[in-house]
Order: sequence, then C-alpha cells, then structure tokens
Amino acid sequence: METKEILEKVRSGEMSVEEAEGFFRRKPFEDLGYAKLDSHRRIRSGAAEVVFCQGKDDSHLTGIFERIMENEGEALGTRASALQADLVRARFPEASYDPVSRILAIEKPGKPLRGLVSVCSGGTADIPVAEEAARTAEFLGSRVERIYDVGISGLHRLLSHVDRIQQANCVIAVAGMEGALASVIGGLVDKPVIAVPTSVGYGASFQGLSALLTMINSCSNGVATVNIDNGFGAGYIASQINLAICGTDHNQQ
Amino acid sequence: METKEILEKVRSGEMSVEEAEGFFRRKPFEDLGYAKLDSHRRIRSGAAEVVFCQGKDDSHLTGIFERIMENEGEALGTRASALQADLVRARFPEASYDPVSRILAIEKPGKPLRGLVSVCSGGTADIPVAEEAARTAEFLGSRVERIYDVGISGLHRLLSHVDRIQQANCVIAVAGMEGALASVIGGLVDKPVIAVPTSVGYGASFQGLSALLTMINSCSNGVATVNIDNGFGAGYIASQINLAICGTDHNQQ
Amino acid sequence: METKEILEKVRSGEMSVEEAEGFFRRKPFEDLGYAKLDSHRRIRSGAAEVVFCQGKDDSHLTGIFERIMENEGEALGTRASALQADLVRARFPEASYDPVSRILAIEKPGKPLRGLVSVCSGGTADIPVAEEAARTAEFLGSRVERIYDVGISGLHRLLSHVDRIQQANCVIAVAGMEGALASVIGGLVDKPVIAVPTSVGYGASFQGLSALLTMINSCSNGVATVNIDNGFGAGYIASQINLAICGTDHNQQ
Amino acid sequence: METKEILEKVRSGEMSVEEAEGFFRRKPFEDLGYAKLDSHRRIRSGAAEVVFCQGKDDSHLTGIFERIMENEGEALGTRASALQADLVRARFPEASYDPVSRILAIEKPGKPLRGLVSVCSGGTADIPVAEEAARTAEFLGSRVERIYDVGISGLHRLLSHVDRIQQANCVIAVAGMEGALASVIGGLVDKPVIAVPTSVGYGASFQGLSALLTMINSCSNGVATVNIDNGFGAGYIASQINLAICGTDHNQQ
Amino acid sequence: METKEILEKVRSGEMSVEEAEGFFRRKPFEDLGYAKLDSHRRIRSGAAEVVFCQGKDDSHLTGIFERIMENEGEALGTRASALQADLVRARFPEASYDPVSRILAIEKPGKPLRGLVSVCSGGTADIPVAEEAARTAEFLGSRVERIYDVGISGLHRLLSHVDRIQQANCVIAVAGMEGALASVIGGLVDKPVIAVPTSVGYGASFQGLSALLTMINSCSNGVATVNIDNGFGAGYIASQINLAICGTDHNQQ
Amino acid sequence: METKEILEKVRSGEMSVEEAEGFFRRKPFEDLGYAKLDSHRRIRSGAAEVVFCQGKDDSHLTGIFERIMENEGEALGTRASALQADLVRARFPEASYDPVSRILAIEKPGKPLRGLVSVCSGGTADIPVAEEAARTAEFLGSRVERIYDVGISGLHRLLSHVDRIQQANCVIAVAGMEGALASVIGGLVDKPVIAVPTSVGYGASFQGLSALLTMINSCSNGVATVNIDNGFGAGYIASQINLAICGTDHNQQ
Amino acid sequence: METKEILEKVRSGEMSVEEAEGFFRRKPFEDLGYAKLDSHRRIRSGAAEVVFCQGKDDSHLTGIFERIMENEGEALGTRASALQADLVRARFPEASYDPVSRILAIEKPGKPLRGLVSVCSGGTADIPVAEEAARTAEFLGSRVERIYDVGISGLHRLLSHVDRIQQANCVIAVAGMEGALASVIGGLVDKPVIAVPTSVGYGASFQGLSALLTMINSCSNGVATVNIDNGFGAGYIASQINLAICGTDHNQQ
Amino acid sequence: METKEILEKVRSGEMSVEEAEGFFRRKPFEDLGYAKLDSHRRIRSGAAEVVFCQGKDDSHLTGIFERIMENEGEALGTRASALQADLVRARFPEASYDPVSRILAIEKPGKPLRGLVSVCSGGTADIPVAEEAARTAEFLGSRVERIYDVGISGLHRLLSHVDRIQQANCVIAVAGMEGALASVIGGLVDKPVIAVPTSVGYGASFQGLSALLTMINSCSNGVATVNIDNGFGAGYIASQINLAICGTDHNQQ
Repeated sequence: METKEILEKVRSGEMSVEEAEGFFRRKPFEDLGYAKLDSHRRIRSGAAEVVFCQGKDDSHLTGIFERIMENEGEALGTRASALQADLVRARFPEASYDPVSRILAIEKPGKPLRGLVSVCSGGTADIPVAEEAARTAEFLGSRVERIYDVGISGLHRLLSHVDRIQQANCVIAVAGMEGALASVIGGLVDKPVIAVPTSVGYGASFQGLSALLTMINSCSNGVATVNIDNGFGAGYIASQINLAICGTDHNQQ
Repeated sequence: METKEILEKVRSGEMSVEEAEGFFRRKPFEDLGYAKLDSHRRIRSGAAEVVFCQGKDDSHLTGIFERIMENEGEALGTRASALQADLVRARFPEASYDPVSRILAIEKPGKPLRGLVSVCSGGTADIPVAEEAARTAEFLGSRVERIYDVGISGLHRLLSHVDRIQQANCVIAVAGMEGALASVIGGLVDKPVIAVPTSVGYGASFQGLSALLTMINSCSNGVATVNIDNGFGAGYIASQINLAICGTDHNQQ
Repeated sequence: METKEILEKVRSGEMSVEEAEGFFRRKPFEDLGYAKLDSHRRIRSGAAEVVFCQGKDDSHLTGIFERIMENEGEALGTRASALQADLVRARFPEASYDPVSRILAIEKPGKPLRGLVSVCSGGTADIPVAEEAARTAEFLGSRVERIYDVGISGLHRLLSHVDRIQQANCVIAVAGMEGALASVIGGLVDKPVIAVPTSVGYGASFQGLSALLTMINSCSNGVATVNIDNGFGAGYIASQINLAICGTDHNQQ
Repeated sequence: METKEILEKVRSGEMSVEEAEGFFRRKPFEDLGYAKLDSHRRIRSGAAEVVFCQGKDDSHLTGIFERIMENEGEALGTRASALQADLVRARFPEASYDPVSRILAIEKPGKPLRGLVSVCSGGTADIPVAEEAARTAEFLGSRVERIYDVGISGLHRLLSHVDRIQQANCVIAVAGMEGALASVIGGLVDKPVIAVPTSVGYGASFQGLSALLTMINSCSNGVATVNIDNGFGAGYIASQINLAICGTDHNQQ
Repeated sequence: METKEILEKVRSGEMSVEEAEGFFRRKPFEDLGYAKLDSHRRIRSGAAEVVFCQGKDDSHLTGIFERIMENEGEALGTRASALQADLVRARFPEASYDPVSRILAIEKPGKPLRGLVSVCSGGTADIPVAEEAARTAEFLGSRVERIYDVGISGLHRLLSHVDRIQQANCVIAVAGMEGALASVIGGLVDKPVIAVPTSVGYGASFQGLSALLTMINSCSNGVATVNIDNGFGAGYIASQINLAICGTDHNQQ
Repeated sequence: METKEILEKVRSGEMSVEEAEGFFRRKPFEDLGYAKLDSHRRIRSGAAEVVFCQGKDDSHLTGIFERIMENEGEALGTRASALQADLVRARFPEASYDPVSRILAIEKPGKPLRGLVSVCSGGTADIPVAEEAARTAEFLGSRVERIYDVGISGLHRLLSHVDRIQQANCVIAVAGMEGALASVIGGLVDKPVIAVPTSVGYGASFQGLSALLTMINSCSNGVATVNIDNGFGAGYIASQINLAICGTDHNQQ
Repeated sequence: METKEILEKVRSGEMSVEEAEGFFRRKPFEDLGYAKLDSHRRIRSGAAEVVFCQGKDDSHLTGIFERIMENEGEALGTRASALQADLVRARFPEASYDPVSRILAIEKPGKPLRGLVSVCSGGTADIPVAEEAARTAEFLGSRVERIYDVGISGLHRLLSHVDRIQQANCVIAVAGMEGALASVIGGLVDKPVIAVPTSVGYGASFQGLSALLTMINSCSNGVATVNIDNGFGAGYIASQINLAICGTDHNQQ
Repeated sequence: METKEILEKVRSGEMSVEEAEGFFRRKPFEDLGYAKLDSHRRIRSGAAEVVFCQGKDDSHLTGIFERIMENEGEALGTRASALQADLVRARFPEASYDPVSRILAIEKPGKPLRGLVSVCSGGTADIPVAEEAARTAEFLGSRVERIYDVGISGLHRLLSHVDRIQQANCVIAVAGMEGALASVIGGLVDKPVIAVPTSVGYGASFQGLSALLTMINSCSNGVATVNIDNGFGAGYIASQINLAICGTDHNQQ
C-alpha cells in the first residue's frame, strides 16, 4: 500500500488514524528504500538470498533452502560441502552440486543466458574460485566463457585468447601468487575487468595479500577488485554489469 | 593492411615473400591485439593517453599535451599543480583547471554526456578524490550526479538520496576513515558500486588502508574496489560500464 | 580490618607492633586499592574470577570452579568446551552450558536483571560472539535484548529496530567482515556503542583485523572498541555502564 | 509535527493528501530515527556539529561556525590552528582557544558541569590528546579531573592517585609508546575505562599502532578503545557515559 | 613451420590463402615470442613443465607426467607426497623420490652435470628447502655442492668453507629465522648469491617474513632473493646462471 | 696447540712446514675466534649444544644426545615431546622431563646454583614459556625464583612481590596479550629486565606481535626483549648476566 | 620513617592515630616500592630524570634541567637540538653537547668510569645511535670502547676486533638495513649482546622494522633487543649490566 | 706473503717466531678469506668502495673519493646530490654526474664494455632507478641496452622488444605500482631476470611493498629480487652474472 493510498483512506475514514500511524511506524523504510526497488526485485532478492553454506548447521540449511525455494523457485548456495549438497538434494532432487566450486544450485530449467562474461584464470589451482564466479554469473542469467590456465608465466596462452576475451561485456580475472593477470588483461582489452585475488601461492603470497595488492595497484585502466577468493562477489557484479548492458540491447543476447 | 590482403598479394606476386615476412615480423601485435580494438579506439586512446602530471617536468608536460592534442583533439591531465595548469593554458587557452580535483582538461566543446554515474562521498575531505572521479567520467562522456557529504555517521542524509542514486547505471562510493559508505550503498541500491577508499583520516586509518580493507571485505553484493585515492580509476571504469549500458540503449541518454 | 582500626588496637595495646607491621607488610594494597573497592566488591570479584576455560586442564578447572563457588556462590566460565561443561556439571548440576557462546555459568536463582543492554549482530556467523556478550552481561545483572542478523547489507533490517536499540543504556555492536555495523548504529542512536569485531569473514578480513580497523576508525561519535571476538569484554564493560546508569535510577529497573 | 498530528489534520481536512504525502516524502527519516531522539537533541546536535577544523578553508570555517552558533548558541572546533582561532574570534570574540589541545570553543557562560570524568595520561607528550579529551568532555557538560604524567615507568605516581580516579564515573586513559596505562588502570579501578592510544613514541611504536594493539588486547576488564590520538572521541563517549549516570542521580552532581 | 616457408607455399600455390590465414590467426605468438626461443627449448620446456604436485588429484598427476615423459623423456615434480611418488612410480619405475625435499624426478641416465652451484644452508631444519634447490639445479644439468648447517650463530663453520663456496659459479643461501646467512656469504665471496628465506623459526619470524626482509635489505653486493621456501625457484635461476657461464667455457665443465 | 708453540716446533724442526701449514689451513678460526674463548668454553659449549628437539627425527635425536653427553657429561633439550623424552630416557635413565616447559635435561648431580634470576609471568597460560626460561637458567647454573600469575590486571599481586624481585641480579618478565608486565616491572625495580612476549591471547594479539611491540616500546629503563615464546633465549641471557655478576662476587652465591 | 617506627610511636602515644593514618594514606607506596630502592637511588633517579628533549618547549626544558641539577648535580638530555643545547649552556656553561648523538650532558668532573661496554656499529650512518648508546653508558659510569663500521658486508673488519669485543662485560650491537650484526657478534663472543636496530636503510627496511625482526629472531644465544634507534635504552641496560658485574669485582675497574 | 713462505722463513731462521706470530695475529683473515680473492680483486674492490653519497658530509665525501681514486683510479658514487657532484668535480674535473640516476662516476677513459645487460622499466617514473642500475652495470664493465616505458598496461610495447631482451645475458626489470613487469618478462625470455621494485605509485602501493611482493611471488621461473629502489644492487649482480658469462666467451663481447 502506497503512502498516498493510506492517506486517502484516512481522509475518507476507511482507515483510522491509529491504523495509519501504525503503518508508518512499522514499515517506514519499505516506503522509502526497499519498495522503490520493486522493478529490480527478483534479481535483488535472488542475490540477497544467496546462502553462504559453510558452517551452517543441517536443519538451518535445509530450512533456508526451503524458504527461498518457496519465495523464488530457485536458490544458490556457495561454499557448500558434499554432505550439505546431499542433504539439500534429499529434499530437492533437482539441485546440482559442483564439488570444485562448491556451488549448490537449484535452477529453473531452460533459463536463458544472455550477454557474455569472460572468466579467465591464471593457474589450475585458481579454478575453484573461477568456477564459483562462472557458476554465480550463470545462475544470475549471464552467458559465461571460461578461459582457464592463461597465467602470465606463459604469455602466449593468454595472447591467443585476446579476441575472445574482448567480445565479453565484462571480464573476470582470477589469479593467485603475484596476481598480475588482471593488469595484463586490462592492458589488452577495453572492457571492465573484475579482479579476484586468490589465496593460491605460498611464502610471501600471504594467503592472497600479495595478489590483492597487485590488483588494487593495477596500472591498467578499467580494473576493480573484490576480496580474496571471492568468486561469488566477482560473478555477481560482473553479471550485474553484463545484464545491464545486454538487457538494453536485444541484438546481443 | 589485413593478414588476408597481404597473403593475397603474396599469392598474386604483388608482394615478395621477404616484404610479407617483414610485415609479420615488424608489427605482429598490431594485427593481433591492438588493431582489433579499432572500433573502441577513441575511448581507449583517450584513456591510454591520460597524463599523470605529478612530478613531470615542464617541457615534458607541454610536449605530451601537444602530441595528444594533435592526435586526439582533447586531453586529460590528473594530479596537475596550479603551475602546471598555467603552463598548459599558456599553450592551450581553452584548457580548464579544477584546483580541488587537480584535473586539467582540454575538451571539445558541446560533447554530449550520456547515461548516469552517481558519485557519492562520505565527508567534505573526500571531495578532491570524488571530483577526480566525477570529472574523469564526464571527460570520458558520462553524465554525472554528485551526492556529497552523505557519510554514514548521519545515515538520514544518505537515505534521503537513495532514489536518485538508484537511477544511475553505476555508482562510485568515495570514503575515508572506516570506509563503510560503499557497503551501505551496496545494500541499498541494485547497481554496480565502484568503491574508492581515501587516505582521509588519522591514526589507525593508516593512510587509507583501513578504508581499503573495509571496502574489499564488503558484505554487500555488487561492490568492487580501486586503489586508495584513485578517483581517476573509479571514474574510468564507472564510465566504461555506464557507456556500455547506455551506448546500446538510446532512450536512456 | 581498616587502617584506623589497626592503629587504634596498636595504641590500646590489643595488637602488638609486630602483628600490625605484619599486617601492613602482607596486605598493604588491600588497604589501598583493593579494600577501597568494597562497595563494588561482588561485581568486581565476580568478574575478576571469570574463568577463561580454554586450555585449562580438568582438575585445574574443577578446582577453580569449586573455590569460586565457595567464595561467591556463582561462577562464570568462558570458552568452555562441551566436555569441560560435563565435568563441571558433574560437580555442580545447576550449571548451565550454552554450546553456541560456550558460556558455562552457575547462577543464583532469581537474580534480578536491571537496565537494558542491546546486543546487535551483523550476520548469523557472529552470533557466538554476540551470545558471549549477551550472557556475560546477563550474568553480571543486566537485562539484555538481542537484535541479531541486522547487518548493513540489508539496511532496512537494522533501521526497523532503531527504536528498540535507542532504549538501551548501552549498545553492543558485533560484526565481522567489514565491520561497519558499529558506525551505522553510532550514527543512528545516541547511546554509547561498544564495538566487537569478529573473526568472521575470509580473505582480506585477516581474521578480524579489517573489522577491527573499521571500528577503531569509526566516524560516528560514541563508539569504542574491544578485541576481536571478545564478546566477554564487551558484555563486561556494557554491563558496567548499564548498571552504573540504572543503579542510580530506580525507575528504570 | 508528529505523524499522528498530520494524520489527524488529513482526517479533519485541515491538510490535503498531497501536502501530507510531501511531508512524508521529504522528511521520512526525521519521523523515524531523528525526531525520536528529541529529548537528547541538544547534546546530540552539539556533537553532530563538532567541527574538525584541520584543512577547512577560511570562509568555509567561519560559515560553519556562524550556522552552528545560530542553531545552537555554542560550538566546538577540534584540531584548529592558531590562525583559524584568530579568524573565528574576529567574528565571535567570546571564543576561547587552547593551543595545546587545539580546541576552539564558544560556550554559553555558566554551564554547569556534572558528574566526573577522570582523564589520565602517561607522559607529558600525551597531554595534547588528553586535553582534547578533557575539554571535549567539559564542553559536553561533564566535570573533569586531569591526572597527567602518571605513566607506568614510575608506578608510584599512578598508585597515589587511585582513590581519586576511582571516584569518576568514567576514566579516560591516554598513552603512547607501549600504551600499558589503560590496562593498569583497568586493573586498579572498577569503572569503565576509555583507552586512547597516542602516536607518541618512535621506532616500533609505528605512530601509535603499538599502543593501539596493547589497549585492544588489554587483559583488564572494563576497557574499550578509540582511534589513535582521538581525544575528541574518548571525551565524547566518556561524557556520554558520565552524563547518563549522573543525569539520573541528582545527588552526584 | 616458419613464416617464410608458409609464405613461399602461398606463393607457389601449395597452400591456400585461407589455410595460411588460419595459421597466422591460430598461432601468431609462436611466430613471435615462442618460436624464437627454439635453441633454448629443451631447458625451457623442461622447466615450464615442472609439476607443482601439491594438491593435484591422482589421475591429473599421472596424466601430466605421462604427457611430459612423451614430449621430453624426463620430468621433475616438486612438493610431491610419498603417495604421489608411489603413484608415479607405479607407471614409471625409474622415477626417484626424495622424501626430504619432496622432489620426484624421472631423469635420463648418464646426464652430465656441468659447472658448479654451491647450496649453503643455515640450520638442519632448512635442509628440505636447500635440497629442493640442489636437486632442481642437478635435474637442470648443474653440478651441485651442498654445504649445510653453516648458520651464522657459529661463524667458524661457514668461514672454513669460504674457499669451496668461492669456486661455484653461483651460490644459493638458504636460511630461516633471522636469515642473515645470505648477507654474510655475500660479504665473503664474489659470486652472485641467490637468497632463499625459509619459514623455519617461530614467533616474530612470521613464517619467513623476517628472513625475507633481511635478505631483501642485504647490505652485501651481489645478493638477490626468491620467495619464502622457494627452493625450486632458487635452483632454477642459479642453474640458469651457472649453465650460461660454463656453457661457454668448456674447460670448466 | 698455540700459534707460538707451532712456530717454535717449526723452527726447531720438530714439525715440518707442511704439517704446520696444514694446521693453519685446517683450523684457522680456532686460532682466532674460537680458541680464544677457552676459559668460557663449558658454558658456551653447553649452550651451543642445546638441542631444539621439535621436528628432529628419532635416530638423529638420540645420536645428538649421545655425542653431547660424551663431550659434556650433561645435555639440555628444548621443545621436546613426551615421546622424544621417553626415547632419550631409554638411553639415559637419569634424564628428567618437564611436560609443561617441554625441557628435557640430563644434569650432573649436585650442581651448585648461584646468584638469583627472578622469573615473573603474567597469567597461568604463560607458564610453559616461563618454565622454559627458568629451567634453562637453572641448567646453566643460576638460582631461580618463580613469581607466576602476577599479571597487571590485578596489580596488587605484583606489587606484593616487588621486594623479592628486587633481590634478583636479572629479571625475566613473561607475558602475552598486551604484554605490559615487563614495563611495569621495569618501573618498579632497578635490575635488567629481559622481556619475553608470548603467543598467549587471541584476536589482535596476533600470536604475540602485540606483546612484542609493547615490550620493544617499553617506556621503562632497563628492558630488552627476546623473540615471542623464546623462554630459552631469555633464560640463557639472564643466566649469562647473573653468573657474570655473582661469578665475581663470592658473597652473593 | 619506617612502618615499625610509626607503629611504635602510635603505641607510645608520640603520634596520634590520625597522624599515622594520614601517613599510610599519603605515602603507602614509598613504604613499599620506592623507599626500598634507596640504596640504588642515585643511579635510578639519574636515569628516571633523563630528559627526552625533543619537542619540549624552552622554558620547560631549562626548568627541568635546573631542578635535576639541584637534586642530582648532574643531568643527561637525549635528542637535544643545537638550539636547546645553547639554551641549557647559557644557564649551565659546563654542559657539553654532541651534535652527532644529540646528547646534552652536565657531568660531575672526574667521574670514574668502570668495567667495559663495547659499542659496535654496522655502518657510518648508524653512528648517531651508537654514540647515543656510548655516551649514555659513559654518563652512567661505564667505560666504553667504540668499534664502528664493522658491518657484515666486509666480515674481516668485524673478525679482526673479536678479541677486543670479548673483553667487554656487555656488548651493544647497532645496525640498520638487514641488522645481522647482532647475530654475528652473538655467535662470536660469549657476552650478553644488546641489539639496537636503526632506521638506517631504504625500501623494505621499513624504517628499521626489518632490522628489528632480524635481531628479535636472532639464532645466536645471548641477544636481547631494544626499540629502533633507541641508543639510550641500550646504553642504559648495558651499563646496568656492566656496573653490576664490575661493581662487585674491584679488580676489573 | 703466503703461509708457506712464512713458515719456511721461520724454519730457516730468516724470520723470528715473534715476527711470524705477529703476522698470523694481525692479518689472519687476509690469509683466509680476503687474499684468496685476489684474482677478482679489482671488481670486488671497486664495488666494495662504491660510495653511498646521501647524507655524507662534504669533507668526508671528498676524502673518500680521493682515497678510492688513489687506490683504484676510478670511483662510483650513488645517490649523490648536485651539490655533492660539484664538490667532487672541483677536485676531479673528469667526474661525470647524471642528475636523473644521481650517479657520480669517475671512469678510466676507453673502458671496454662487454656482454649485454638489458634494463627494462615499466613507466617513465621508474627511470631514475633503472638508470642507476644501467650506469652501475656500465661502470662495472657491462654493455647495457635500455628498454624503457614498456609497462604491462600496454603490452604490445613490451612484446615488440622481446627479441632484443632475449639477446641479453641478464635482464633487469624495474617497475613500481603492481610490479608485474618482471613476471611477464620472465615468462617471455629464457634469461635470469633481476627484479627491482620501485616506490613509484600511491595508495596501496605502500612505497613499493606491493611491487616487492609481486616480484617475490613471481610465478615465472628465473626471477630473483632486490630491495625497493635498489638500482645499484640490481646493476651490480646483473653485471656480475653478465661478466661471468661473457668473460669466458670471447666471441660474445
């Protein structure tokens, strides 16, 4: 019910002052911030309801999945263990689980994927994070191309894929150790690059700090960075950008 | 000259094997990475040629501006001092200089600004960085709305602008001290947020490190971060995203 | 025995010089710092005797609980394992154990709870620390209201509880990841806020360092911070403040 | 105007639906967060309007002071330079300036000071920060006792003041170098201690980081910490606590 | 096939323009960066194909070894577990495994070792890293002398080996804790020193950070540093230097 | 054999030039650094031969103990596990093992202990490190007084022992968390204080870093610091100081 | 007046209970900590009164020197500027000032220097800190030998002084950059070594942090460390150790 | 005089035992470490005598240059100011000074330069460090090719120089900000790469720390790192490697 509607009911006597006052007292923010976002609601809710599974207890987890499925008809879980996946699949047999990215998803069949997000990763050890990014973007409705194992220690591998990367609306660059992949891609293509440092490495990589600093200091234009190992975060914002671009461009789908 | 064209000339005898070989030897990368970016060239070149003025010596600086003006007809300098501005304006009287952001720009008159980038800042001390972001995005062709002094210590200020922020294609959140602004905005609007930590603060702000960590750890979806005080970098990627979105949506301009 | 009393006994000959000297030699500080705190003794002793259970060996642990129960009639253990709880309950069946906060408490029945401490937490993963704070404050005699899962990534959740938070004498804000909750609350209510960073998060959260820096750099007034995961410390000082306020205000109890 | 009042005017026809809607649209947050704080308004506003003078330009600064004086009739500036003080005093001759703490204040004459905040400092070099805390607390209405130069390297100095410190409602402990003062005080008195690390020191003090870590790790109960050199922040929260306690206890004033 | 050869075939009609174009499109970088390295190919490939075994799954690991053996006839694995070694030896019985350095190697019999690399280590706990360096250098074709347990806390041990160390073409200095060994050797011999900090130590060694900083700050000339515990990296570059020197000096072999 | 003696034998023909040359070649440093330390040899050797047991393999460990026992007749092992203790005791039944400090010692019976080292510790959790210090000092010949659980959160405990601490020739202060104990002792007694930070604590104690910084920044005179948890190092240098003092003062023994 | 004396006067009626009570109330700590240190008073007071001149204002500074001169007849100022030295010399013409160490001292003529402290420094840039250490130790009554510029990059320089260093009762090792000097000396001589990291260096020396970590991690026995650039602290504790040793050994003076 | 020679003279009576003893006592290390380096002496001495000019006082500086010129006939000063250059040129007019690298050199005319060191730098701001490296290598006798401004943000610039870089015996990679240049070069050429992080950058570059970590974590083989801004160190070790290679290969000069 909109502010105006309430006021009109107060005026006409359909609603008492006390009822109206209660309304403004109880839900003022919905009138303000939340309700105004209605047109974006599904995407937003979907994301707001992504389940960070790690550490959740069993009954809690299934309960959350049930509630989301009721509201949304689809659900995304990140950092799920194989056991958690079994648990959720016992209730929702259509759930799929990827042990590499630990993504546990229940998707509506036949969901169209639009636009293009390119997910590039440095080494094979970065693939779990890259897959988390890729599958998140796919769940949210983006088409994804995976370009893995193109680390800069053998630059020709990356260079031979520049054409394909350039066709994406947004690029995700996933790398550990020295994390230079994002800068190199940023210098080769003219698309926004979302950089994901990973905790892959040893010694002075300090669990991803070195890669994070490298990416934050990128001398290439068009690079912004998310948290260490945060494949989900990268997939989310890259998909957001991709869908905004192709959502308004029906030829590109 | 394209690869195919050369090969056809070799076949037809118009070009000798040696000439063709020299061609591939001399400029292979243009064929590959660089020349393929032609359709995006102006934007890309413009950015590639942005001048980081700080520390450049005088003759160097004017030389660079002259070369860029010749090639591009417009030029953007960041972190320029008032003296450097005078120097460049002696040669290009149409140059404009903003002492707050230290942006020195020579723009083509009547450049249309498209889409919308919203630049939000926490405190008045963050305005130099916010302005660097705003003016960079404007130089690159984006329309910008400035929403300053909406730090979270007085949350009602920010909340009263949520509607306007939500209308942007991309939001830039500039904040020092604890840097929580980006997360709060990320939780209120459903647009990509580019977070810029600033070195504003004292004590344990450690010249922006605290704000950087806050932003990188954002629990809100759709937030990615650039370097401390890197208003230019934020303006660049936000404009890149904004133009990609509205470039394909002519109603939005 | 007070200084004056001893001196009078020396004067009257009831006590020898040697006895009196021994008294001053043995316990001079009681006369000074400690004994002067008598009126606050129970609270103080209670706290001084709080048992940090983690790593204590079994016989040690039960011994300590026995001594405290003898002196005080109630006891508080923090970071107790389930096995330690069983051990203590074998001896004191009235002991209660909360596996979430790992608080092991033996309380006098019917203890009145006074005033109000509001314990807010960002995410569900912060609840163990929040519960440690809440149960500590309750053990020490404060009434506590728990307002959990009001992290800033969905700001409307927090905003809808501002009224209730404002009614507390002291607010505890528990958050991990970017830890912005304390600043946001500090900007919304006019009560002292005790901020507790938690080690919840990953990557650049650096086991709570990021949240700690955020809280220490808070741009909101009225925020002070305790150690990472130190729910006990927050519960202690918040209860101290709350009891001081309501202890002198009998209407508020 | 309260929500209820508006609704009643709508009902009675005194106010049109459009007017009422505009009211809710324009100032929704006042109805919610802000207006509910009315009883605490003056203190809150006073603090919200504290001016961090450092780096403000001249016309800005005087403008802000003028606006605050109009609204509040008193104003507090922190980190003001001597030149800024002269500027403000040219307009408000009643302004007082303390070059040690760099506090610039315009206070209503005869303001009563209530309760007691004890401000302790380690060395003479910590006095500027301690004075900022003390004068902030005084401006906000708290009586303050200064106990300076009681660093732990000569413990008898501190011990001889324990009695007096114990009489305060809240203690501020200001120290640089190793910053152990807060813990020692926390172990001696049974009052909330607000710890302020200072950047005093050299070498591995790392501009106050060492003192900050010491205070955050305090093994004494009842200690919470603010930012390095943040005398204002400590004075604010200590005064908030003190006034809450003595505000409800008329004997203590 | 070389660029020239292709062009000649195009000219002669042996190859169509489309085929040739495909060639340039598919593998442009081989023509450029990669193929030019032909004369160094074996060493380079060998190294490029070194397998970082840790964390690889079983079928993956044996697959990689099989492919490398096919291409190269020898293979080097680092950080291999005993189980991984068994697995590879089941397929390649000639593989040797050293449990100390965790090096798993399949070498061609009778490989000549040339020049001299001296591998010095501080304590016995540094030997796993030192051995990784030594065995890597040997695999790549360098003769290695091991000089272990010559830490600076008993300087005479090191001094009595200066003569022998001086005879090497390149010296590797492996040390944990304070990591001063590299500087001391750099001050005693006139050969390039590759410093390897190890994570050996406790407390403020911070998993090798202290040793890394010591080595990077070396006041001796001729010292450069690799990552913490990166014996492989040191063995690689030391061998590279050694072979370059003795490769052109047939007397030294 | 001394340099002079050799030269005289060369002169007299008792020793050939070759033999003498070999002598200088083989052991030049003994002539120089090592042999000159003869008068201090036993203490020095004893210490040089202290075995850091952690991580040593079984045959290695017993071998080392056997060699040291042969040379010295007594041996000290630090950080020994219970299993390692059993192993050594199977060979040397007179070996004693303390599971708290993990010190494994074989001492000559009736060794006189001289002077006085006072070992103070903050909390019970610091006792393993304190005991390592105490038992090391005792092994090396110092009399030790243990003053445990005198942390500064209950200052009266420490103050009541000042007299006894003041009687030591050297004081060891062992503390974790905020580590302020060393400074407080340094301010109370006029003896050299060796500070040992421990890794006891949680959160921002950062495994002892906080305590280390506190101790290094001590504002008290006469405090020097060893590594985190390095009880052995503190016991060694404190004993060295104590023995030097009382070694020349026969009344004090 | 001693506790016993007072009590006897109370008993005999020479002192009233109130007077006695006042005595215990006023100065309890003197009875306890302070007064018991009488025999060590001069050294202690002298040190307690050392003036850290840096940042002191002029009238303050001269006032402090006057008071100390009255009480002690000698005074030591550290980190004094040339201007401060002039100021103090205007009042005390016998004051001497060393611009290198910035030590400003007023000493009693003919003070005997006893024992031996050896002050070793790595490079010429470390001399200011080394001199602060040396002059502090001399002021406090120790004989000092300076052995400068014996950094480990040219180890023979240090080795040729081992004999002389070994004759000291305590060694101070002052070094910046990688700071390995302390460990090397600790491995060569059997005397307590006080290590002083200096902020000399650049890049990853991080203003002395690298040297500090090196020294704290020393693998040599008998090394303890003071703060970065804290020559005074090292001179104080080294002198304390030296005087304790030779104070009881009259042959050594 | 060799050990053997002395001994023979003692035997023959040409030298007394005392004389011989004095010889061994005075210069034992020359016999050992130093004198054995004779064949490498000039290079070594040259380097050992490189003058770090920064902070040296004037008379000191000219004195050092005079002594080196006497011994060596050439001299190298690093980090010299223009004023210091003038001072030295007043005495040695043949001295050359480069204000960019701040290298002050007096070289023998006609010195042949051998082999090839390639010095690559990322941005123009890195040139001072790159030039320090280049001029150091030239002074020490290496031929140098400068390849500047080939940062990875425009990768084609670097790729077009791969052929030339590959021809060097050793490559120096100088870069600030994210410092990825070294890894990229390491992945493109098969030569040892000496990486030099620079302090160029802002924000989270932390004065070169980010670049240092990137380089230390390089995933490319054949990369070792020197200190931040340490162009001299890189030039030294690269020249050492280059001369060792070409010194034995006369065709390459």
